[in-house]
Amino acid sequence: MDPDPALHRRIAGDAAALRGWLVDLRRDFHRHPELGWRETRTTRRIVAELEALGFETTSGRDLLGDAARLGKSRSPVPGEGDTGCIAVHDTGRPGPTVCLRVDIDALPIPEAAEDHIPAEAGFASAAEGVMHACGHDGHIAIGLGVARLVGPLLARERAGGRVKLLFQPAEEGGRGARAVVDAGWLEDVDLLIAVHLGLGVPSGSVALGVDGFLATRKFAVTLDGRAAHAGKDPQSGRNALLAACQMVTGLHALAQSGARGVRVNVGLLEAGTALNIVPASARFEFEIRAAANDTLEDLDRRCRRLVTATATAHGIGSEIELRGSADAWANPADVATWAEGVNRASGAYEHALRGFSFDASEDATVLANAVAAHGGRAGIFVLGADLASGHHTPQFDFDEAALVPGVQLVTAMLATALARAEGDGGASGGG
Amino acid sequence: MDPDPALHRRIAGDAAALRGWLVDLRRDFHRHPELGWRETRTTRRIVAELEALGFETTSGRDLLGDAARLGKSRSPVPGEGDTGCIAVHDTGRPGPTVCLRVDIDALPIPEAAEDHIPAEAGFASAAEGVMHACGHDGHIAIGLGVARLVGPLLARERAGGRVKLLFQPAEEGGRGARAVVDAGWLEDVDLLIAVHLGLGVPSGSVALGVDGFLATRKFAVTLDGRAAHAGKDPQSGRNALLAACQMVTGLHALAQSGARGVRVNVGLLEAGTALNIVPASARFEFEIRAAANDTLEDLDRRCRRLVTATATAHGIGSEIELRGSADAWANPADVATWAEGVNRASGAYEHALRGFSFDASEDATVLANAVAAHGGRAGIFVLGADLASGHHTPQFDFDEAALVPGVQLVTAMLATALARAEGDGGASGGG
Amino acid sequence: MDPDPALHRRIAGDAAALRGWLVDLRRDFHRHPELGWRETRTTRRIVAELEALGFETTSGRDLLGDAARLGKSRSPVPGEGDTGCIAVHDTGRPGPTVCLRVDIDALPIPEAAEDHIPAEAGFASAAEGVMHACGHDGHIAIGLGVARLVGPLLARERAGGRVKLLFQPAEEGGRGARAVVDAGWLEDVDLLIAVHLGLGVPSGSVALGVDGFLATRKFAVTLDGRAAHAGKDPQSGRNALLAACQMVTGLHALAQSGARGVRVNVGLLEAGTALNIVPASARFEFEIRAAANDTLEDLDRRCRRLVTATATAHGIGSEIELRGSADAWANPADVATWAEGVNRASGAYEHALRGFSFDASEDATVLANAVAAHGGRAGIFVLGADLASGHHTPQFDFDEAALVPGVQLVTAMLATALARAEGDGGASGGG
Amino acid sequence: MDPDPALHRRIAGDAAALRGWLVDLRRDFHRHPELGWRETRTTRRIVAELEALGFETTSGRDLLGDAARLGKSRSPVPGEGDTGCIAVHDTGRPGPTVCLRVDIDALPIPEAAEDHIPAEAGFASAAEGVMHACGHDGHIAIGLGVARLVGPLLARERAGGRVKLLFQPAEEGGRGARAVVDAGWLEDVDLLIAVHLGLGVPSGSVALGVDGFLATRKFAVTLDGRAAHAGKDPQSGRNALLAACQMVTGLHALAQSGARGVRVNVGLLEAGTALNIVPASARFEFEIRAAANDTLEDLDRRCRRLVTATATAHGIGSEIELRGSADAWANPADVATWAEGVNRASGAYEHALRGFSFDASEDATVLANAVAAHGGRAGIFVLGADLASGHHTPQFDFDEAALVPGVQLVTAMLATALARAEGDGGASGGG
Repeated sequence: MDPDPALHRRIAGDAAALRGWLVDLRRDFHRHPELGWRETRTTRRIVAELEALGFETTSGRDLLGDAARLGKSRSPVPGEGDTGCIAVHDTGRPGPTVCLRVDIDALPIPEAAEDHIPAEAGFASAAEGVMHACGHDGHIAIGLGVARLVGPLLARERAGGRVKLLFQPAEEGGRGARAVVDAGWLEDVDLLIAVHLGLGVPSGSVALGVDGFLATRKFAVTLDGRAAHAGKDPQSGRNALLAACQMVTGLHALAQSGARGVRVNVGLLEAGTALNIVPASARFEFEIRAAANDTLEDLDRRCRRLVTATATAHGIGSEIELRGSADAWANPADVATWAEGVNRASGAYEHALRGFSFDASEDATVLANAVAAHGGRAGIFVLGADLASGHHTPQFDFDEAALVPGVQLVTAMLATALARAEGDGGASGGG
Repeated sequence: MDPDPALHRRIAGDAAALRGWLVDLRRDFHRHPELGWRETRTTRRIVAELEALGFETTSGRDLLGDAARLGKSRSPVPGEGDTGCIAVHDTGRPGPTVCLRVDIDALPIPEAAEDHIPAEAGFASAAEGVMHACGHDGHIAIGLGVARLVGPLLARERAGGRVKLLFQPAEEGGRGARAVVDAGWLEDVDLLIAVHLGLGVPSGSVALGVDGFLATRKFAVTLDGRAAHAGKDPQSGRNALLAACQMVTGLHALAQSGARGVRVNVGLLEAGTALNIVPASARFEFEIRAAANDTLEDLDRRCRRLVTATATAHGIGSEIELRGSADAWANPADVATWAEGVNRASGAYEHALRGFSFDASEDATVLANAVAAHGGRAGIFVLGADLASGHHTPQFDFDEAALVPGVQLVTAMLATALARAEGDGGASGGG
Repeated sequence: MDPDPALHRRIAGDAAALRGWLVDLRRDFHRHPELGWRETRTTRRIVAELEALGFETTSGRDLLGDAARLGKSRSPVPGEGDTGCIAVHDTGRPGPTVCLRVDIDALPIPEAAEDHIPAEAGFASAAEGVMHACGHDGHIAIGLGVARLVGPLLARERAGGRVKLLFQPAEEGGRGARAVVDAGWLEDVDLLIAVHLGLGVPSGSVALGVDGFLATRKFAVTLDGRAAHAGKDPQSGRNALLAACQMVTGLHALAQSGARGVRVNVGLLEAGTALNIVPASARFEFEIRAAANDTLEDLDRRCRRLVTATATAHGIGSEIELRGSADAWANPADVATWAEGVNRASGAYEHALRGFSFDASEDATVLANAVAAHGGRAGIFVLGADLASGHHTPQFDFDEAALVPGVQLVTAMLATALARAEGDGGASGGG
Repeated sequence: MDPDPALHRRIAGDAAALRGWLVDLRRDFHRHPELGWRETRTTRRIVAELEALGFETTSGRDLLGDAARLGKSRSPVPGEGDTGCIAVHDTGRPGPTVCLRVDIDALPIPEAAEDHIPAEAGFASAAEGVMHACGHDGHIAIGLGVARLVGPLLARERAGGRVKLLFQPAEEGGRGARAVVDAGWLEDVDLLIAVHLGLGVPSGSVALGVDGFLATRKFAVTLDGRAAHAGKDPQSGRNALLAACQMVTGLHALAQSGARGVRVNVGLLEAGTALNIVPASARFEFEIRAAANDTLEDLDRRCRRLVTATATAHGIGSEIELRGSADAWANPADVATWAEGVNRASGAYEHALRGFSFDASEDATVLANAVAAHGGRAGIFVLGADLASGHHTPQFDFDEAALVPGVQLVTAMLATALARAEGDGGASGGG
């Protein structure tokens, strides 16, 4: 049984009432951006808000354990990896388990100081060189907004099942989701809902039938050559910087493909110690992407071979470390159809796009594939928000009016999933 | 009139008596290595020693002023550039001005922890990643040893003229000498003596007829591209990392030459900010060398064109900054002959090599050319010292027995130059 | 008015009766492949067949004139450019002008000698290093098959309008179509039909709603450096081979794009004259592709800049010459619908695919865009044929059973277009 | 016993009388340049001249056999390898065996048409793209001039021993000398004299104490990748052209060395077959040089590893074939002293340079090392000749006045070596 129109109207009203609070939250997180695995202040604020709402939370090391995690720093800072949070609300009645996942980390981008609303309105990043340039600050606000509405709603409606609100760390670089899966938090999830703001979808629209999530892997390469005096004896050196440069041009040439979504990006490179020394060491990080998992697998093999053999060509040692990953994904047609129904009933967004291609990577796909692997359903939805500039740029900013409909639609989804479940004892959203 | 044999014997005895003190000094400086323009502790210790010996000293900003200096850090640390020292001893009698120059900076090399005497004997570097891997610690000790002997000696011998003892900062990278010249300290110098330990000359030998000093220039290149999301929109990025890599391979190919001593080394490269962003920025440093100044000039033009046009090829901006330089040089034959005479009379070294080719760069050449430009004489001498490993390597160490003959020969040179001068009222050492 | 079922049955029967003749023709052309602009024997045979059927033909220089043509050889062979043929059949009755275009050139690929039907059946290429590895031999056969059927059919049916049968030279490399347009042969064409065999469409199927034709441009780059003795004097050389290599890696990196169909391929490179001479000259050819014309335009600009500025970086001169091109294209929906109707009525192919993406380039797109520019309709159709190996490989071969349905469908299209036209006085096929 | 002054005067007069004939010969060879192993016309003319002078000659396959020879063409032309000539004159009296070696091949360089004496005087190359741009035409003329003088002279003087006049093919690329050694022609040679014109030594001067001959090896590399359609399926290709380009930049970077004479030159590259095919094949040739044989050996290892591993990096196969070589060499001091004595006595050249560094490669070094290996003496001498432009350039030309003193000095050397030998029964020139 679907929620009645009155309930949808009530959710709409409740969400609209949160607007000022959502904007304040978003701006607070925007001012204090933290890189992946380092979201300690962010996590504390989320936990505080959730506990004030009466949720039980599990966070940091209790959430993800201390096990090997992709993409840890080489020289970890105190508290690194001790981030992220999950809040669980059990109705005590039979029903499905529905998980909302939002991500919480920022990017190593210096924020623009001019022609930029956060700067003008005084909530620009206070952390040098770090910026919420992808909208995760808005995702956190939406997650907390849903948290504020969902408990009373489920109680009032006597809905069944459980809600998990996951505030995932380290999405950038494809690191956090794998840790969440490994820690077992998704094993009982019947429906996973993940959201992302913007991405070209304008305010007032939502993309529910989304495909084109690119599979990706992130690698760190360490090269170990031999130093020598660059003036007296360069021939006895084994130049790791030069080898790295040859690898970079070699790797870039592998992006050429008739398959969809193939990308190679060497995003970081550091090499050498002094001008007059043949560089003995180099380190670089690169990522690969493809629209299909087997295309990525093939590209992975070619990249590894290129790095390893080019190192041999230059007489130097090499190590390749996997630092992160995300999978290919497309929302199943039934999930998209269900979500469109909820949006129509809810009225959260005027326009629902189908056939939207994500064309980028999201580690929510790792969660989605894990849920799908045990027969659950999953959808990753793009919530419309007008943007000031592209994602991952210093001028990035989004229309804060997009927060309310996001809260409204997700809350309606949860209400629908759990309400329907009540009727039939466990069917998931896409059933 | 040359010093008599008795004086040479006395210098020899005095120098030998300093052995333990010289080793202690050298080990203290070795434990506390400091990079160029940051030799603040080193300078304090040198000043303290010189003042204890009764010298007047000028150091730090008083020495070199606050003017533009090659190779400053982009983010200077407190005290940066406020280093180096000169001690002047004026006999009060007419005579030439003779300057001894030693250099005092260390290198960004992590010191070896095993199979390495400094580690075993407890005087390894206490500064992580910084090491006296070129012997400048020994140069300082020799300079202070000469300081200890030269004052009493000149007084006793009633020699004429002036001695300048220059403890020059920032030799590595070819930065400090230019500042010394610009500050005018060499304008009245009739004879410049500069020394370097090791370089393949064994303990017991000295190289006085030295040529083959390579002219060099050091550059920093900054590239300014455009960031973009590496997955969604790579084609709108302008990849500074990739452009830098093309420059590196292009620059290396320019080292091919029929002219002597031509080298190109890109010693440092840093680029990019995050894995999933097309790198908008890159920075690298490179040096060029050649045995002849005009060869270097031509190479300079080709390198600059390669960098600038390759940047254009990739649609990015570029800036090239000169960070340091040294000149080509060969000790004049008369200076070498004179120095051989002093060594023979002194008995400091059993073997005197002629025809030794330096095959590397030294910014003492900037001092030597400056002195030669106003008609003075200059010699850069290589003091024999057995080495544990090549210069600029983590295992570098030299035979400490080499300190005493170094002090002995240089003191004998000063005594000879000033004693002779007394007779003829101002002729320089090579007259 | 569409043709009645009886007519379609008659065309089917007539086409089937040609099977042996079509196979013989195809095998003859297969044995004598000729590169673009050099199809002199091929043209003679086509002309002979057409004249035997009573067509008036225009061929070679009379067809395309002597004007500047893309992609001429640097050292033309006799007869080069004097190829290709058009046959015009005018019913003498009012009606549209319909043009069938097939292409006739081969590729510089050595044909496989084993596991290859042409080798086993004795019709492998007799021209060393040249091969019909794309199916144009089959295209010619189909064109001649249509020629054999269409004249009597139009007379019998008293259809109106004109038929042009265009046997276009130099499709590979995107050269011939531009010359055809420039010579004015398409100015009065109301409907253009072009066909291609294979491309992954199996025997028994046909793709009529085809899109994804990649826009392409082909360039030849000539680099002009300075020779020097590689041992004595390499620094006075300006190495065109090395510059070319840097361009190749630079160009390949430009293929990375979020836009569809972007490709860069340097397909040929020749540089240098002797081992001990710094190479003064280099020449290479490259092509670019993209699914959209503006993407191609942007890529064109970036490639030209990369080549020109990299040449400057290496101190050498450069020239870039456009050698060929094709446009982006998608068959209009009305043309696809019309063609599906003809196929259904004709029964030529059991399966008609829609939504087939060509994902490669075809210079028929230049013809199609030219016809569309004056309001005509155009369709480029893919005729199913099982393949032994991919196009442009030494093992390429196609199922000869595909020739008959090709003749059948195209003849039915001509009959339909001209028959309908008769009724309504000139509307084209897609009307 | 050395020749008396009268003999030297007679040789001088006889040589001077040959001037017009030498110039005619040189111009004839200049007009008909032939590449290494293809000097068939050149050999015929040499043989004709020698036989007219009464020499017995051995040439072509009789000279060098049919065995494996470095640097044969992949598609040999008729007569290829059937070139070169030796003339032996035995006095019938006891004495040493003295061999004069000149080289006869030309270069693949198009000759300049303007500002160039051969063009203006009508003896420019008649062979397109081939040119005597290194002076070997002059070497042949000198060899024939010596042939004309030496027989009568030895008879008249009743000198003892034997003279071998070797006209060696395929010097460029370091190929012919190894074949001469392998065929055993040098086993009984007591003194080898080889000459080269020009190289910076002006007319009127000769360099007799020559060192700095660079050891060299020449390689051909064949790469075997996989073709693919560059538009549809580039990722399934393995791009041999791209791999070759990476090898070229990698190889060039290996030239950086503190050792003398290190060079790497990729002189030729050919890759790919068509614009729209991922290049499956590439072939390039490169040479390496160094002043010392062990430096070359180390460079050889690094280059081979770079090629092999870079091929692996790109998933392609590679083969490296040695195509030619020359050794390091320095004329022994005693040979230089002896030669200076001859020149002084002869008066052939006003100035005799010592300490001249060749700074390039010559496969006469292979002959010289072979003679030295069995205890003989050898000298490679540079005969002064003003040049219009550097060796291996299109404007290369030399002062024809240099031919006469060349004939005069070499004849005087032969007379001296054999005359002296008569006295002591076999001592070589350097005794």
